[in-house]
Amino acid sequence: MRVVVGVDAGGSSTRAVAVTADGTVVGERRTGGGNHHSVGTEVSRHFREAVSGALGDVPTADVAAVVAGIAGAAAAAGATVRQRVADDLAALGVAAPHAVVTDLDIAFLGGAPGDDGLLLLSGTGAVAARYTGRRLEARCDGMGWRLGDEGSGWWIGSRALRTAAAALDGRAAPTTLVQHVGAALGVQDLSGDRRQDWIRTVAPLTAGQVAALVPAVVTAADSGDAAAAAILAEAVEALLGTCSVVTTGPTDVVLAGGVLTGVDAVRQPVTHALESLGHRVHLGERPVLGAVRLAAELAGWDRSTAP
Amino acid sequence: MRVVVGVDAGGSSTRAVAVTADGTVVGERRTGGGNHHSVGTEVSRHFREAVSGALGDVPTADVAAVVAGIAGAAAAAGATVRQRVADDLAALGVAAPHAVVTDLDIAFLGGAPGDDGLLLLSGTGAVAARYTGRRLEARCDGMGWRLGDEGSGWWIGSRALRTAAAALDGRAAPTTLVQHVGAALGVQDLSGDRRQDWIRTVAPLTAGQVAALVPAVVTAADSGDAAAAAILAEAVEALLGTCSVVTTGPTDVVLAGGVLTGVDAVRQPVTHALESLGHRVHLGERPVLGAVRLAAELAGWDRSTAP
Repeated sequence: MRVVVGVDAGGSSTRAVAVTADGTVVGERRTGGGNHHSVGTEVSRHFREAVSGALGDVPTADVAAVVAGIAGAAAAAGATVRQRVADDLAALGVAAPHAVVTDLDIAFLGGAPGDDGLLLLSGTGAVAARYTGRRLEARCDGMGWRLGDEGSGWWIGSRALRTAAAALDGRAAPTTLVQHVGAALGVQDLSGDRRQDWIRTVAPLTAGQVAALVPAVVTAADSGDAAAAAILAEAVEALLGTCSVVTTGPTDVVLAGGVLTGVDAVRQPVTHALESLGHRVHLGERPVLGAVRLAAELAGWDRSTAP
Repeated sequence: MRVVVGVDAGGSSTRAVAVTADGTVVGERRTGGGNHHSVGTEVSRHFREAVSGALGDVPTADVAAVVAGIAGAAAAAGATVRQRVADDLAALGVAAPHAVVTDLDIAFLGGAPGDDGLLLLSGTGAVAARYTGRRLEARCDGMGWRLGDEGSGWWIGSRALRTAAAALDGRAAPTTLVQHVGAALGVQDLSGDRRQDWIRTVAPLTAGQVAALVPAVVTAADSGDAAAAAILAEAVEALLGTCSVVTTGPTDVVLAGGVLTGVDAVRQPVTHALESLGHRVHLGERPVLGAVRLAAELAGWDRSTAP
């Protein structure tokens, strides 16, 4: 039974899927983070465990091709990342052809019907990209929390924190974000001054943990909180603005990332606005399938049968 | 020759001043950071070097009193801070009465003509406080860069970074902040993509280094840049808003911190707005003199002769 393996290696998890030529998923495994910037030496272990886990009982000799989409693979560290993947596959006994692409490439190809179009991604970070013939032609944002990531989960969570803090502090009007975000954070009444409790709770948060506050913002907005609704509306505007920078005309647009695929209050208005501009919108909920698609092609399989 | 010693221990430096009963400064020494949260075990060394440096040849037996204003002295760690100061003075052979107050207390008393009024501080962070009979009655902001510090040097620098990045990225209109802030940061053309060069340069910056971008923002605004001028105007509005939360009526207001004492484009409109509300505005450029004032009182000296 010949299989190809696609891998999606991001900051918080590494995901591998093994698929047969008729498009059947025969195994899938999710392990720890795979971004070499953030996880260091554990990345190789996560990668090998994900691939061997997805293969299960399939002999490595039956692997026809492997493609991995890895955050940071396009940057200066690209050569290092490619060498590491080659070493890891060799260590697993996988001798099949393989390739390394970026996390953006698989996010686009995992949702796009063809090779041309736009990717608009909002997860912990946010970025837009334009592809022509699978080649990245332009990108906007993805500049990180200090310089951009506008409309991302981090951005929404960070605004919610500052808005709630301003309300606690008397600098802004009351908002139920204080209750909803405070509960999500698990802020405890320790000091007798809620502001100090918030400061202590928020200090150690990672960008991913700030992004994890998005559901609390949605809950507040759904219960009628104007400040929460404004933050989500501003995220929609920011994402549309980022997308517009790379847009050259109506095309296929893949929406990806946890915020754009999982948060209705962001996805629906973004979809509506993009469709009103003539775009065809596609949900790219499984970037790993973009890696599988590339692996099937690398194996020389008929593309129409890939998942 | 009897002296009192005032100490101002902040995140970036510790400053000690020795003063005689007639108000003459006989010695001053500045050493490294004195905030136990950020500098750890070096704090004691910085404190002892500052005090002994300010004393110079003055015998420790001639010290009549010591007062230190220390960031964080009011928080849960206050007991720890007071014990450390007692130990450090004992190690120096200083047996005089001493006291520890907060950095806000000395910032207020270093500029206030009396014991009542407001402190409005914008340095790396930003905070407002109301004092009645020297007692801190209310404070607003000072919540740190994640939750507030609105109108602070960090806040101004951070907005400038994001505005410049958005311009580089096509998300916002061009601004000369790209040139002025880029020069201040020393961004080098390494990757062929200026956005990547900025991301790499900005990643390791501390809050203090971000706050150090304020002069570049002022230069851009002075040369007619609308985006830079807007950031400074928003800082003025934010600081006035923070101050208004603790205001109960016209009173003495001490402006402190590097932004409010050193940046005309912020200080002047803030002063004008506060004066139009009936406040009397005072510049508190030397918080350490607030510690000296308290030390002179602790020594039982006639307050009118203290500097």
